Amino acid sequence: MSRIIRLAGAQMGANQKADSRRQILDRMIALLDDAAGQGAQLVVFPELPFTTFFPRWLFETQAEVDAWFETSMPGPNTQALFDRAKALGVGMYVGFAELTPQGQHFNTSITVGPDGTILGKYRKIHLPGTVEPRIGDRFQQLEKRYFEYGDLGFPAFRGPESWGRAIMGMLICNDRRWPEGWRVYGLQGVELMLIGYNSAAYDPMGGTTEDASLRTFHSTLAAQANAYMNATWAVSVAKAGNEDGSGLIGGSVIVSPNGIVVAEAKTLGDEVIVADADLDACRQGKEKMFNFAAHRRPQWYRPIIDQVGAVPPA
Amino acid sequence: MSRIIRLAGAQMGANQKADSRRQILDRMIALLDDAAGQGAQLVVFPELPFTTFFPRWLFETQAEVDAWFETSMPGPNTQALFDRAKALGVGMYVGFAELTPQGQHFNTSITVGPDGTILGKYRKIHLPGTVEPRIGDRFQQLEKRYFEYGDLGFPAFRGPESWGRAIMGMLICNDRRWPEGWRVYGLQGVELMLIGYNSAAYDPMGGTTEDASLRTFHSTLAAQANAYMNATWAVSVAKAGNEDGSGLIGGSVIVSPNGIVVAEAKTLGDEVIVADADLDACRQGKEKMFNFAAHRRPQWYRPIIDQVGAVPPA
Repeated sequence: MSRIIRLAGAQMGANQKADSRRQILDRMIALLDDAAGQGAQLVVFPELPFTTFFPRWLFETQAEVDAWFETSMPGPNTQALFDRAKALGVGMYVGFAELTPQGQHFNTSITVGPDGTILGKYRKIHLPGTVEPRIGDRFQQLEKRYFEYGDLGFPAFRGPESWGRAIMGMLICNDRRWPEGWRVYGLQGVELMLIGYNSAAYDPMGGTTEDASLRTFHSTLAAQANAYMNATWAVSVAKAGNEDGSGLIGGSVIVSPNGIVVAEAKTLGDEVIVADADLDACRQGKEKMFNFAAHRRPQWYRPIIDQVGAVPPA
Repeated sequence: MSRIIRLAGAQMGANQKADSRRQILDRMIALLDDAAGQGAQLVVFPELPFTTFFPRWLFETQAEVDAWFETSMPGPNTQALFDRAKALGVGMYVGFAELTPQGQHFNTSITVGPDGTILGKYRKIHLPGTVEPRIGDRFQQLEKRYFEYGDLGFPAFRGPESWGRAIMGMLICNDRRWPEGWRVYGLQGVELMLIGYNSAAYDPMGGTTEDASLRTFHSTLAAQANAYMNATWAVSVAKAGNEDGSGLIGGSVIVSPNGIVVAEAKTLGDEVIVADADLDACRQGKEKMFNFAAHRRPQWYRPIIDQVGAVPPA
């Protein structure tokens, strides 16, 4: 079987609060068509691509919050994207705000196969931000208020034959900065990591020392190094641009198992990036430098699970 | 107290097998003088700086192996360096091959304070290479043969008042590619990570897909990203150049808690790099993005200690 897969990142420009769901969905379908036209077999969309990044706003009622969530996936507001992907025979990673029948809220992503089958599901574990709004700030980061922490762990899964049975993993936004999540996937032999994000172009917690350039550098650095240290391909895709006055970085990238950026978005708008990924290029790292069985020493890693916060020496 | 410390990396060029110990020590003292002349308070030397990188050679007898080791530190072959450092009031990180009174062999580093006190000791945990020599290869990587795995964990320690009571950690060479070690230090609030290395300018395990440029990129990438993800300064220092026909990368760097390279060696020879590190620059990361207490979710990290090698999904 072929172990080369053509990957696409479908970076999205800003979604304004006032944009209709159909307007946004049409842009996503246009990106899908563009990627498929370039021969992509798998298209990665950002985190929460169907709406604006709503956790920046404080809502008064739970009904206002729930209006941003999907109660089924696909559902009435998303079905057309799934139909087009299936018709094109193209798979996709797509994020969404998930409201379960039991009333739980998660920041979720799924990977859909070329035949429309849902291959894997992930719920964001590293939720940034705060539960309580920060008084006086124009924009909030309320993911800890609106979502529960992901409860599915970091579950790797296999792609179909046409994707070389790739071992795949998913992360969402802030997760990509946490080496623990990458490593749990690495310990499942991950060959292809899919990531969507919305990252503020400024310090979302109110500081003034981080600008868009630094934050884009951090985003790329985290993808490169964690891909390298786990010998995996990675596709990391932004929703970018100015959403109702709040800036989001772009910098969508496709990264090789050597940590090299092989495709990179140049704009802050809707933009498709494409690269061919040879999954067997993961073998050099997995069998040598990062041959975990030969070189890891878990008896010294216990604080990683025994501690949550940092405890300085006396 | 001041929380700004002037750091130096003392990159070393090649040490040939035939070089005398005194010849090499004199070069180290010259580097120390150079760094002190530039006002450095702490000078980082490479891994195994006192000799050639001897694990590339297969030795027939244990006596031949032991000849590369130090039975005390400082000892007769190293005392002059310690004396000069103390006279200058400069601290240092220095690696050495440690042979204990009990006959144990470790790849070790110590950090020495400005008054000559040994502040911390680390024994390399992530030993690369093989126990058995690879037949037919001109150069070996026999660290797993000549050294035992480090048995001290990743112990952070405090610098003196004149270093702002910095929380410090040490790694050695291959350790810098393993996020687990960095994170265990991160969980102790590390603000300054010291690293020495000897890294082949080719794939030391016999492959042909890695060259000096790629391997230097990997070295820098690992230092940058792990410094960023743990909000710490890092000084990562090479022994470089051509040792008896076997190439070593250079690329010594000083990296900020933002993952930015603030000083970088330009040669493959003896070269001092210097930068001022404001330890309080770690606070932005430690209190916000990488506020571990607020954002880590250890219940999902268990495979990191429960597994050694990778286990792919069915």
